[in-house]
Amino acid sequence: MITDFVCSLELCHTRVSLHRTLIMFSPQPIGYVRSPYDETAQVPKGLGAKHDAEGILEILPELEAGLTDIEGFSHLIVIWVFDRSAGFELLGMPPSDNRPHGVFATRSPRRPNPIGFTVVELLRRDGRLLQVRGVDMLDGTPILDIKPYLSSIPMEKLKRGWLAEAEARREKG
Amino acid sequence: MITDFVCSLELCHTRVSLHRTLIMFSPQPIGYVRSPYDETAQVPKGLGAKHDAEGILEILPELEAGLTDIEGFSHLIVIWVFDRSAGFELLGMPPSDNRPHGVFATRSPRRPNPIGFTVVELLRRDGRLLQVRGVDMLDGTPILDIKPYLSSIPMEKLKRGWLAEAEARREKG
Repeated sequence: MITDFVCSLELCHTRVSLHRTLIMFSPQPIGYVRSPYDETAQVPKGLGAKHDAEGILEILPELEAGLTDIEGFSHLIVIWVFDRSAGFELLGMPPSDNRPHGVFATRSPRRPNPIGFTVVELLRRDGRLLQVRGVDMLDGTPILDIKPYLSSIPMEKLKRGWLAEAEARREKG
Repeated sequence: MITDFVCSLELCHTRVSLHRTLIMFSPQPIGYVRSPYDETAQVPKGLGAKHDAEGILEILPELEAGLTDIEGFSHLIVIWVFDRSAGFELLGMPPSDNRPHGVFATRSPRRPNPIGFTVVELLRRDGRLLQVRGVDMLDGTPILDIKPYLSSIPMEKLKRGWLAEAEARREKG
């Protein structure tokens, strides 16, 4: 019985703000990432990590019309789910530093909402398959949304906080 | 009784992929946007729209530790919920053009997952309040995540698809 199934997941009792949750929305995958990475350890991480890996964003057949005209954009914002991450920590040690930082000042996968964000370069569209460069997701990662990347903050206006400090420390050492 | 409440929202019967949804995650607000905009019509939209409005990202008290070191970053990625948008359409007419485009090639609020994305400039942090510039969200919008904005695509490498074409047509006309 469906009702039992819902409550067997302990959702009813563990979430204080269940009502709020349900009136927010229920995330549904719009598609999946095809990536060369099967495990977290394979994804380049830390300072100076380059994300040149090619992959495919495979959109569900019933949503293909939503890709109309996407081929004109050179870069896409991909919003996805850290589906192999559990729980979160407010302070954590990122791979690029030996000091802890707040989760909202890092790209840690252990976040209150396990949402990932990647900008990829669109190489080609074949129907509902988007061939892209710059994937840092694991193979099979559920995609929540794709948006066109429209504008950039000029590099000279960008401050990169603890990351710039960690880079400077590493260069010194 | 909680069980009845859950099913009274018709979630149990309307979502084919209920199981998948529940094992993805249940979005929880990490805080709320304080914005000068109360209604969608007030938010600047369309070609050349400037987003200079100041606002506050108010993070829940129990998550404040997650903001540690965020003040070093000049720009933040804010991921939020279009909580006053209902349903989605795969093809729609954006305010910046008179031709329809696929939802994933626009920033339309009527998306399969109603997730919004904004880059803001961090002006100041006061405890769990982040004073920012560049809000385009409505007052009270639930925030799902905040991440540091780390790098930019150089403007000369950016292609802006139908948006650039619509701008060119408008300049001609």
